[in-house]
Amino acid sequence: MKLKAIRMGIDTHQEFVVYIRADAAVVRAEGFTSSVRVMISDERQEAIATLNVVDADKLEDGCVGMSNALWDVFDPEHDVAISHAPVVSSMSQVRAKIYNRHLSAPELSDIIRDIARGYYSDVQISAFLSACAGSRLSLDEITSLTSAMVNVGHRLTWPGISHIYDKHCIGGLPGNRTTPLVVAIASACGLVVPKTSSRAITSPAGTADTMEVMTPVDLGIDDMRRVVESTGACLAWGGAMGLSPVDDLLIRVERILDLDSKGQMVASVLSKKIAAGSTHILIDVPVGATAKVRNLDTAHGLMASFEHVGNALGVHVQCVITDGSQPVGNGIGPSLEARDVLAVLRGDAGAPEDLRQKSLELAAHMLTMGLGLAYDDAWEKARQVLDSGQALQQFERICRAQGGFTEPVPAPFTRVLAAHQDGHVNAIDSRRIARLAKLAGAPKVPVAGLDLHVKLGDRVSKDDALLTIHAQTEGELDYALLYYLHNRDMIFLEDKPCPAS
Amino acid sequence: MKLKAIRMGIDTHQEFVVYIRADAAVVRAEGFTSSVRVMISDERQEAIATLNVVDADKLEDGCVGMSNALWDVFDPEHDVAISHAPVVSSMSQVRAKIYNRHLSAPELSDIIRDIARGYYSDVQISAFLSACAGSRLSLDEITSLTSAMVNVGHRLTWPGISHIYDKHCIGGLPGNRTTPLVVAIASACGLVVPKTSSRAITSPAGTADTMEVMTPVDLGIDDMRRVVESTGACLAWGGAMGLSPVDDLLIRVERILDLDSKGQMVASVLSKKIAAGSTHILIDVPVGATAKVRNLDTAHGLMASFEHVGNALGVHVQCVITDGSQPVGNGIGPSLEARDVLAVLRGDAGAPEDLRQKSLELAAHMLTMGLGLAYDDAWEKARQVLDSGQALQQFERICRAQGGFTEPVPAPFTRVLAAHQDGHVNAIDSRRIARLAKLAGAPKVPVAGLDLHVKLGDRVSKDDALLTIHAQTEGELDYALLYYLHNRDMIFLEDKPCPAS
Repeated sequence: MKLKAIRMGIDTHQEFVVYIRADAAVVRAEGFTSSVRVMISDERQEAIATLNVVDADKLEDGCVGMSNALWDVFDPEHDVAISHAPVVSSMSQVRAKIYNRHLSAPELSDIIRDIARGYYSDVQISAFLSACAGSRLSLDEITSLTSAMVNVGHRLTWPGISHIYDKHCIGGLPGNRTTPLVVAIASACGLVVPKTSSRAITSPAGTADTMEVMTPVDLGIDDMRRVVESTGACLAWGGAMGLSPVDDLLIRVERILDLDSKGQMVASVLSKKIAAGSTHILIDVPVGATAKVRNLDTAHGLMASFEHVGNALGVHVQCVITDGSQPVGNGIGPSLEARDVLAVLRGDAGAPEDLRQKSLELAAHMLTMGLGLAYDDAWEKARQVLDSGQALQQFERICRAQGGFTEPVPAPFTRVLAAHQDGHVNAIDSRRIARLAKLAGAPKVPVAGLDLHVKLGDRVSKDDALLTIHAQTEGELDYALLYYLHNRDMIFLEDKPCPAS
Repeated sequence: MKLKAIRMGIDTHQEFVVYIRADAAVVRAEGFTSSVRVMISDERQEAIATLNVVDADKLEDGCVGMSNALWDVFDPEHDVAISHAPVVSSMSQVRAKIYNRHLSAPELSDIIRDIARGYYSDVQISAFLSACAGSRLSLDEITSLTSAMVNVGHRLTWPGISHIYDKHCIGGLPGNRTTPLVVAIASACGLVVPKTSSRAITSPAGTADTMEVMTPVDLGIDDMRRVVESTGACLAWGGAMGLSPVDDLLIRVERILDLDSKGQMVASVLSKKIAAGSTHILIDVPVGATAKVRNLDTAHGLMASFEHVGNALGVHVQCVITDGSQPVGNGIGPSLEARDVLAVLRGDAGAPEDLRQKSLELAAHMLTMGLGLAYDDAWEKARQVLDSGQALQQFERICRAQGGFTEPVPAPFTRVLAAHQDGHVNAIDSRRIARLAKLAGAPKVPVAGLDLHVKLGDRVSKDDALLTIHAQTEGELDYALLYYLHNRDMIFLEDKPCPAS
């Protein structure tokens, strides 16, 4: 019983869904009901999908509808057969983990292989993540998981280069765009830094979004290699390179559950880096009340795991705890963050000092790894490279190699929001600041976002500017404004200074 | 921004899904992407659903598509608004459980209330089930969960009757249709047994499917009450009565995960019974290699939990371990099981002795609870009531009160399958026997299924009949036959008898 495949035009994200008529012979013969898992196959390939039964008038007779992600996998020229999905044998290992059993490396490897080939529904991925959440994975298991995630994707190699540097930030801090600065400084000092970054998932900008304002970032692997060979670095989007592809599937379901899992975080970060061929990885761990890591205990536990797993897999990992109490820089949103990055590189008078200092600190840590310098000497070298303009030249060289440099432009609509009282800035809520920037249009609209004019501890007078909203349209500006007016306390003003600040 | 609701004609089971055009204003303004959770509301009600973004040509401008289950909830006359779903606050309790924290009664109650009102996606239900699986729920937590599940549904009361009897079997055994017999015997002895049963979910027949061959089972609560008042019992379908409705949602996801959770099983069974107003509950726990409970250790753990939770909630629970090594009775499938039940009630010469004996045993246990008799005296009373025809008369009375009795009819197509060698029947695989009956058409086709002609320990000669397949069409007969020919060892013949048999 072959069926003709039809594109349903329904986006179900990465989860495969097939739509079959209630009166189809295969539905009656196999006793299919909605939400069972079925196998779809033609001569060349097969996939497992979730079944949705549809009314007879929604689909032509003899056809099977495919969700967009599934459609992309199959060749519409070939008819497909539908049958009961085979039992996914690695689910018995997921159940074992749910029952608290330790999983071996081959067992975790089976699970990750089956997730990679689309055998798990979101419901099954959810069970796996729940079983591994909190501190349920031992360091051995995190190591095996990381290794399994690396192995199911592409893996970049850098023949003839023994040290490949990389950095990562455990997100949650708006405006924290140190990566372009650290990469420019470190590669200007001779380190090889083939940086691949992600676009924003839940934040107002990712490094790839910010870089895309200034230069093309959607490089193929060959282009990326050419850029790195000619400049010692790149600042590219890693999304299309197939590095640790299971990570994207897991992260999406983790986000639905809002699960915080040390093991998954370590495996997620390190699998991407190891797949990219990195040997030396610097990890920025901002700690703050509204950052992802909220206290030093959690930070230290995370650092120990990162370092253990890195060691076990033969890469050098160094973690740095940084201040996560407020956003970094002034701009929040792709273009505004690009503007800040350029201001620091160019030594502009108005360049945000916190972004400059944090970038120097991280670059110095990378240089201690790469050049064997003491921290103070490394910091001084980073400062010289930045202040002399060498970092700017290196940044421009990277952009040219990636396809040319474009200067960020300002947004057509802006609105300054002023303090409604005198006071001390005693708290800034990074989560609501990020939400405000997104409501203004970031990251989809690159020029959208906001400019923060105050920092923790500042004293402001009534009518002083606190922030400026930037937007592409008046509608989006109003939309963000409305949210701000209901959430003025995202910048928390009090009569007396907070003892801590 | 109001949108007109349209029925998409897509069955996504109980999970609510909304379909919105990629170019809809609300999608851009809210930054919606596929698989986010959204709130749909009109003046009267609201629901949370999973979003699927669709191509512009799949939906009229200004419309929002609804999956069938969601469509059933809303009144199409009123336009709806779509917004980001609020954070489901009880998910933080689910996360706490994932991190191994004990949940209090109010916390479990919050979770069950939110599941009941459709606030959880399947992915979130999966996380909850995974966190509670195995032995992760304490007896206190199982008690709280059971109680919470009772409280979100309808609850039957039986004014003026202090003792309400019920029975349940921890499934997995094809043909094990003791319920009509036990109910007839016990109610003929004066016990009040308002039995509600389910239809088959994964098995070839449920008690409701079997009873429906002989009498209407889809009674409203008022009809059921009338039947019980006039006869002391009923044998009705409980599915539409809204008893512990969350149980149905949980079971569906548990089935996808194939999770075996003691706590969930206890809460599932007892919540349905307590909601039905039962005070005395007999639980049949078949133990066997291919039954649901595979060994005595598991059975004893389960029994202890059932009895503890029953006590804590003020109901009397008695568990009985029975032989689960092979199917019970001869027929498997609604009509064939009905035929067996009638044969036992009528004392026919060919009545299956194992079904008769097991029903007498369970009825005797129920009579010890209800009449305060010693087990042997209770058994003898049950036997007398059965052999004297009183149980048959009582059964006919119940059927008449429910709307009349219909005699089961045979299937139009049958095929006898014979032994291909001499041998001893050393094992019967209940799971594959059940699958065979389902492939023949059971339970959807009531006359379909199979007749087993052998029992464990039997000695057969080549060409002796092992089983007969019954089907409504030749196609279905062939379909089942093909499966049998590939799985002949579901009835496992060996030259020597198995030491155990």
